Amino acid sequence: MISWNNLNTLPSFGKLQSLRNKVSLREVLSGEAGAARVAEYTVPMAAGLAYHYAAKQVDEDVLEALQALADEAQLTEKYQALLSGEVINTGEKRRVLHQLTRGQLGDAVVVDGVDKRAFYKAQQEKAADFARRVHAGEITNEVGKPFTTVVQIGIGGSDLGPRAMYLALENWAKAHGCFRMTARFISNVDPDDAAGVLQDVDVSRCLFVLVSKSGTTLETLTNEAFVKDALQKAGLDPACHMVAVTSETSPLASSKDYLTAFFMDDFIGGRYSSTSCVGGVVLSLAFGPEVFDRFLHGATAEDALSLSPDIRENPAMLDALIGVYERNIQGYPATAVLPYSQALSRFPAHLQQLDMESNGKQVNRFGEPVSYVTGPVIFGEPGTNGQHSFYQLLHQGTDIIPLQFVGFRQNQAGVDVEIQGSTSQAKLGANVAAQIMAFACGKEDANPNKHFPGERPSSIIVGDQLTPEALGALLAHFENKVMFQGFLWNLNSFDQEGVQLGKVLAKRVLAHDTDGALRAFSALLGI
Amino acid sequence: MISWNNLNTLPSFGKLQSLRNKVSLREVLSGEAGAARVAEYTVPMAAGLAYHYAAKQVDEDVLEALQALADEAQLTEKYQALLSGEVINTGEKRRVLHQLTRGQLGDAVVVDGVDKRAFYKAQQEKAADFARRVHAGEITNEVGKPFTTVVQIGIGGSDLGPRAMYLALENWAKAHGCFRMTARFISNVDPDDAAGVLQDVDVSRCLFVLVSKSGTTLETLTNEAFVKDALQKAGLDPACHMVAVTSETSPLASSKDYLTAFFMDDFIGGRYSSTSCVGGVVLSLAFGPEVFDRFLHGATAEDALSLSPDIRENPAMLDALIGVYERNIQGYPATAVLPYSQALSRFPAHLQQLDMESNGKQVNRFGEPVSYVTGPVIFGEPGTNGQHSFYQLLHQGTDIIPLQFVGFRQNQAGVDVEIQGSTSQAKLGANVAAQIMAFACGKEDANPNKHFPGERPSSIIVGDQLTPEALGALLAHFENKVMFQGFLWNLNSFDQEGVQLGKVLAKRVLAHDTDGALRAFSALLGI
Repeated sequence: MISWNNLNTLPSFGKLQSLRNKVSLREVLSGEAGAARVAEYTVPMAAGLAYHYAAKQVDEDVLEALQALADEAQLTEKYQALLSGEVINTGEKRRVLHQLTRGQLGDAVVVDGVDKRAFYKAQQEKAADFARRVHAGEITNEVGKPFTTVVQIGIGGSDLGPRAMYLALENWAKAHGCFRMTARFISNVDPDDAAGVLQDVDVSRCLFVLVSKSGTTLETLTNEAFVKDALQKAGLDPACHMVAVTSETSPLASSKDYLTAFFMDDFIGGRYSSTSCVGGVVLSLAFGPEVFDRFLHGATAEDALSLSPDIRENPAMLDALIGVYERNIQGYPATAVLPYSQALSRFPAHLQQLDMESNGKQVNRFGEPVSYVTGPVIFGEPGTNGQHSFYQLLHQGTDIIPLQFVGFRQNQAGVDVEIQGSTSQAKLGANVAAQIMAFACGKEDANPNKHFPGERPSSIIVGDQLTPEALGALLAHFENKVMFQGFLWNLNSFDQEGVQLGKVLAKRVLAHDTDGALRAFSALLGI
Repeated sequence: MISWNNLNTLPSFGKLQSLRNKVSLREVLSGEAGAARVAEYTVPMAAGLAYHYAAKQVDEDVLEALQALADEAQLTEKYQALLSGEVINTGEKRRVLHQLTRGQLGDAVVVDGVDKRAFYKAQQEKAADFARRVHAGEITNEVGKPFTTVVQIGIGGSDLGPRAMYLALENWAKAHGCFRMTARFISNVDPDDAAGVLQDVDVSRCLFVLVSKSGTTLETLTNEAFVKDALQKAGLDPACHMVAVTSETSPLASSKDYLTAFFMDDFIGGRYSSTSCVGGVVLSLAFGPEVFDRFLHGATAEDALSLSPDIRENPAMLDALIGVYERNIQGYPATAVLPYSQALSRFPAHLQQLDMESNGKQVNRFGEPVSYVTGPVIFGEPGTNGQHSFYQLLHQGTDIIPLQFVGFRQNQAGVDVEIQGSTSQAKLGANVAAQIMAFACGKEDANPNKHFPGERPSSIIVGDQLTPEALGALLAHFENKVMFQGFLWNLNSFDQEGVQLGKVLAKRVLAHDTDGALRAFSALLGI
């Protein structure tokens, strides 16, 4: 029997509070015992990745308390219930089924007579078939010329995740000869966004993917109109250049304005939709459906690991628990995501939405205010770039910011140079290893300017190469981490009521139905 | 006589502490008094911009205390001293002269017989002349074909600022017919960064700008080798395709490997170098030297406004003071930068370096530990994209994050569509106005999920259009804000000792001169 309780009502939370500042990283990472700790504090992930937490402020006592917390919070039971279609998104009275877009790990989920796994799989196959026909030249523009560019029109989860995944695999796909179409993205309602993209492409060879679950997202419909206008001005028929990704009940679903439509549903939150056809259509067109399928396999393999009740075998759950220890016991306000891979340049932006939109809440799943802090600020840029930017504050600032590194032993493009006796890839790896130790252990120096306090915790996920499978595993790891943290904080991680008020007020501004300060601010903006 | 004192030793700091949570935004922004406040709490900036702070948690009492703090901390005197060449960067014993790259506001600064304003101006003119000759087809590749693409190779300040400025003006330049060359950037030591860029361009038509002040930045030299390798493999002579931006004493300065070299010096910090030839060469090539000159004019006009001792006439100083009030009195841990302009998509990443690398420090300018918090975490993405991402946490999370909005009344490209009775530009403006009020005033709701607590402070900088002058003013505003905050916290904002330890350890890893945990982490990365 599952029960939903606030974090601070669980017995082990009190135990954990007594373990504040228990571990000195400088101590536990010193000498050969430090090397042994690196080997031991490792959890295998899917697709050859592993989660390493030797530079986190945990020891056997803290881990024992975290395991107890996981058990008391019934983390795996709640995950099982989610997988089997329970209404976990209680605020909106919805199931939460994004894991089902990539595999079936729980009981069959049948809604209104429809097996949802079969439904998602059918949409994936429809996207695969469509992409193959585009690639084969069966689906072309009005004059029989092949499409060369796919342009996704969407915002939020219809943009950040798919865009981050596209950038993550672009170099890999080129190096593996499977690159078929260039992808571009239009998201912002700022008309300069669409104008900038349209100026760069040959619209006559573009296939536009309009993504809106409800079919009513104002930014997306506005950008659709912008694009249609450009197509018409170029003498082209928009209906020959557009497909829709939407829900079956949306006004877009059966519109003649699109070549075809692909479906998602209310059980897939926007920020969890990269493995649904929100990501599937654009990624299948860009790289081929086989690559997208491999991406899904990585994700579902990682989802399977999240089922283990043992925190030392469940990387997402352990990561989530350590994050709660850092946030609620250690009191750290933010987390930096630092991939040492240029391909992951927009992965932190995706995680920013995933995490902050899911767990940036102050009422629990029953609508009661919680008396502890919840989701932290998430930010990040790829290393080594970040080293030459904000790492100064991370090393020597007055706040401690926990760090989440990602690194790979091989690059994607397979091209490298050796300078001063080492390849670029070796330099990249050397830098992240060095940073972990610099953050953890610091350095005494007689010159206080050059003194590094250390005791800045970090974890690192390491793999051989950023392949489609590895990317899928990485994505699922963070999705599941956020889910487990939501369970720990007793939040509904799957709604986003906090975005509504701004929408309502913006409509009032556009209708000129305002007064006072809102009227004054609108006037500043020329409205 | 200037004296340097810690923030908490200034009498008005005590006064300010008594004014914690003094202002309720919901109260002060309500009714017609709220509209009057919006009109009154405004400071004009250069280039038609203005800084609006009606939605900040200040009133006449707080402003009076902030004015007293500015006076006691001698903010304008310190700025005057900096402008006139005093050694403000005491740790490295260097002057701080980036404002001099765009205009002369203080006394003449003569170093070793060289007038520094004349020196920077000469470098700007050299870059302008070079760009004109490239555009005129006088400087071409080996076979007489014009260069079409400029590729900047640099990292940190040699990358983030110039890249953000390029993206900020790309659409504007196209719409104004002054677009001459496409720019690309290679920064990361990850070999996939250079490989990705080189795959996209015709190297035979590329001019590479190698930027390294010392001439020894490992990432940059490595990427130079990567590019030279690619040029040679294409049968091209690298020396015909490369220029250097460096200091006169660097090994690159007189090398025959470059067509020519442009100079900066030790008085220009990397993160403050966008208005030096670090930004000047690439931006003059991309858009023409006249555009770069206009950008400098905007910056120096804003610098001039920063001279006023009256906080209500000095936008950067007021912004800095309010930031310190939020950080040290209100206790907020981070600041979000939210430009409602797609062109400013990478401006937050630049500010992240500018701010966090300058003021992420825990010792004062005398090397003594400070007992108060200093620089906050800085992050951000363009609106409206952010609204569909992390705004959930900003509205309803457990921490209050102050917000820095930027908006414009006109777009850059001059193309727009009207949907549901309004243009995209109007929707963009309506959204930012709505967000300011939603954050400030919140909304009561019987459903606690839909309850918005409000009292989240924000400021907004508004202008007509993001022109080169406006961009220069915006850049200088934030540079000067960071400078004033450094004065308030009594930090040296112009060194970055926190980046050194990682470099030292990375070299040891590459030399295989490690043991213990560092050896073990290196092995994980395959080294």
